[in-house]
Amino acid sequence: MNTIFLWGSRGGVSMAVALAKCMDLMTTSAVREILKVTERPEIISLAGGLPAPELFPVEEMKNVTIEVLEEAGGQALQYSTTEGFTPLRRQIAARMNRKFKTDFACENILITSGSQQALDFSGKLFLNEGDVVLCESPTYLTAISAFRVYKPTFVEVPTDDEGMIPDELEKVLASTANVKFIYVIPDFQNPTGRTWTWQRRRQFVEIINKYEIPVLEDNPYGELRFEGEILPSIKSLDTRGLVIALGTFSKTFCPGLRIGWIAADIKFIEKYIMIKQCADLHTSSMSQRQISKYMELYDFEQHIQQIIAVYRQRRDAMLDAMEQHFPSDIQYTRPQGGLFTWVELPPSINAIQLLTISLRHKVAFVPGESFFPNRHVPNTLRLNYSNMPEERIYEGIKRLAAAIRCYKAD
Amino acid sequence: MNTIFLWGSRGGVSMAVALAKCMDLMTTSAVREILKVTERPEIISLAGGLPAPELFPVEEMKNVTIEVLEEAGGQALQYSTTEGFTPLRRQIAARMNRKFKTDFACENILITSGSQQALDFSGKLFLNEGDVVLCESPTYLTAISAFRVYKPTFVEVPTDDEGMIPDELEKVLASTANVKFIYVIPDFQNPTGRTWTWQRRRQFVEIINKYEIPVLEDNPYGELRFEGEILPSIKSLDTRGLVIALGTFSKTFCPGLRIGWIAADIKFIEKYIMIKQCADLHTSSMSQRQISKYMELYDFEQHIQQIIAVYRQRRDAMLDAMEQHFPSDIQYTRPQGGLFTWVELPPSINAIQLLTISLRHKVAFVPGESFFPNRHVPNTLRLNYSNMPEERIYEGIKRLAAAIRCYKAD
Repeated sequence: MNTIFLWGSRGGVSMAVALAKCMDLMTTSAVREILKVTERPEIISLAGGLPAPELFPVEEMKNVTIEVLEEAGGQALQYSTTEGFTPLRRQIAARMNRKFKTDFACENILITSGSQQALDFSGKLFLNEGDVVLCESPTYLTAISAFRVYKPTFVEVPTDDEGMIPDELEKVLASTANVKFIYVIPDFQNPTGRTWTWQRRRQFVEIINKYEIPVLEDNPYGELRFEGEILPSIKSLDTRGLVIALGTFSKTFCPGLRIGWIAADIKFIEKYIMIKQCADLHTSSMSQRQISKYMELYDFEQHIQQIIAVYRQRRDAMLDAMEQHFPSDIQYTRPQGGLFTWVELPPSINAIQLLTISLRHKVAFVPGESFFPNRHVPNTLRLNYSNMPEERIYEGIKRLAAAIRCYKAD
Repeated sequence: MNTIFLWGSRGGVSMAVALAKCMDLMTTSAVREILKVTERPEIISLAGGLPAPELFPVEEMKNVTIEVLEEAGGQALQYSTTEGFTPLRRQIAARMNRKFKTDFACENILITSGSQQALDFSGKLFLNEGDVVLCESPTYLTAISAFRVYKPTFVEVPTDDEGMIPDELEKVLASTANVKFIYVIPDFQNPTGRTWTWQRRRQFVEIINKYEIPVLEDNPYGELRFEGEILPSIKSLDTRGLVIALGTFSKTFCPGLRIGWIAADIKFIEKYIMIKQCADLHTSSMSQRQISKYMELYDFEQHIQQIIAVYRQRRDAMLDAMEQHFPSDIQYTRPQGGLFTWVELPPSINAIQLLTISLRHKVAFVPGESFFPNRHVPNTLRLNYSNMPEERIYEGIKRLAAAIRCYKAD
């Protein structure tokens, strides 16, 4: 049975309406469902992935908006080109080239409604039913949902603290037909917070060159590095135009404007533009100009430094609290940037059951299970530290530690 | 051969990357391509479908934005719910109920990035390859492109000045398997400017009830009625929850913010929400709050009355000019609202060839051909009157009439 039947209730007459096959593969995202429960103020939610709203440049946005409307008037509110606002595309290319050692021009950039839209478009661009997507194991939950709409098979490539394991990747590529792309987050990955080493990046590019496999390099957190130098992006090592880089202002500026981008070889960008035209014509003219004007009027790098300073303290608070309160048989990552840390519990603990207990202790997290498209790994969980002050992070981890003790005592 | 091969040039090594099957069905929209040519200032373009930017509430938008940022601060820039901003959803439901005699609550509304996104999502929701979409003949060009991504077959239902012809619709439904939905624009249709009569609306609903076929009622122009009363929407006559109503602020407010909506039975809305979550998480929090605040602070109905007054004069100018300058063997519609009129040339004239001559006369339009998914109707064209002052419309029609005379003389 490949179609869902939807039962209408209006007018008292039941009806059966046939929907597309992809609809039975979509389920409401687990994170979103959990976030609904955790909206209750008494719960400390380490579950989300929200940036700190107190760092949003609210006052500056007033000035920026007035400037945009005075300068551009009606144009800022009119239909605009599918590709995006040219000055913004130029600014993005220049920033990427500077920070991630890429070599993009304005023409290589397509503005999207957040990088989530870039994930959806990539599914649409590459995938027929049954095609194969390779990804890290675990990987970003909502990328899995975005691709799943196009009915691919996922193959999880074993990944360790240094990144995707080259031998394992090569093994998969040598033995798997119809691999359409590899999806990776090499910097402060969601959910693990891990960053690929330089060595692994180079080995990865050698392998994709050999097999001529396109790569989606998703990099929402790369600029939020708390210590050390930004490593060269996979794209900067790409000699054959195989890597499609995804970026967003959601973590460095504000997510509510929904501005992300795809940066790639023009041959890819042309196809993405066609997809964008059919999908929603273009991204908000106003929001594009707001971000562009902000970068023109204010010091964006300084703004990012503020975010880094705050998130670094919050990461430290979380690591300290875990160090102090967690039982010694619990492992966790020590991210050098980004928003998340990843916890491995002893095999005897099931994170979904732990969540039920944790909610009684008034703390929430995301069980790791949903970050694995195929594997069942019940003893992991993801914690977010970007969205609340240190005291609350301490308190949250204390509660979580108490919940773990309860679980073990049961 | 079902896959497109994309030839990469970077690094001097050619590569073949396999794309999804749907990619060979997408072509850059004809209207967009023409708009590129017609950006030259010496050309009078009657080709686009742009609203008049001088009517955008630029000053009010400054106040609105400041109010939103002062009131909501960081929240206006943060991630928000997929469904959309609750006060805006309430405002939309209330307006639709008042204007189009529907019966929607907040829960029936999903905010989308323009109504183009609602078209894309509808394709994703309903269509498997080879399924059938019914539509008016002609119909909205970019709806065809949006649905085509999902590889349906189109069946054009014969349509006259009163709307879709009931006997013809019934004939198609009785003889066609796998009809997934019917796409219609009953008010001031794009491209024809025609409006369905009340009688036709009632007959249409009887037929869809009998066959239990979902309907997409796209209504971007319905509020822009220059004379007479707004007719009941198809949705208002729907007793079985089969009609999905699409709306947008692009023609009544400003398109650059990309705010549209889907209004339907909750069972449909739940599915659309899942699609939206995977596609782009949510629509810009800021833009949603801006429109909502505008409606709170200002008189939106009065704003719409201003648009109506201006467009009515422009429509009159275009009809007068055509009356005066067009040869008598040319037919055109007399729209009671909206943005377009539709021209039928004598069968001997090919509109695409006429466009080439017209561009030499420095006037542009959209040849009608692209508005028919299957039929070849070379002697039609669409004219837009919303985007320029009367003198320029007069001049444009004079030039077009001259181009027609040239064509005939050749």
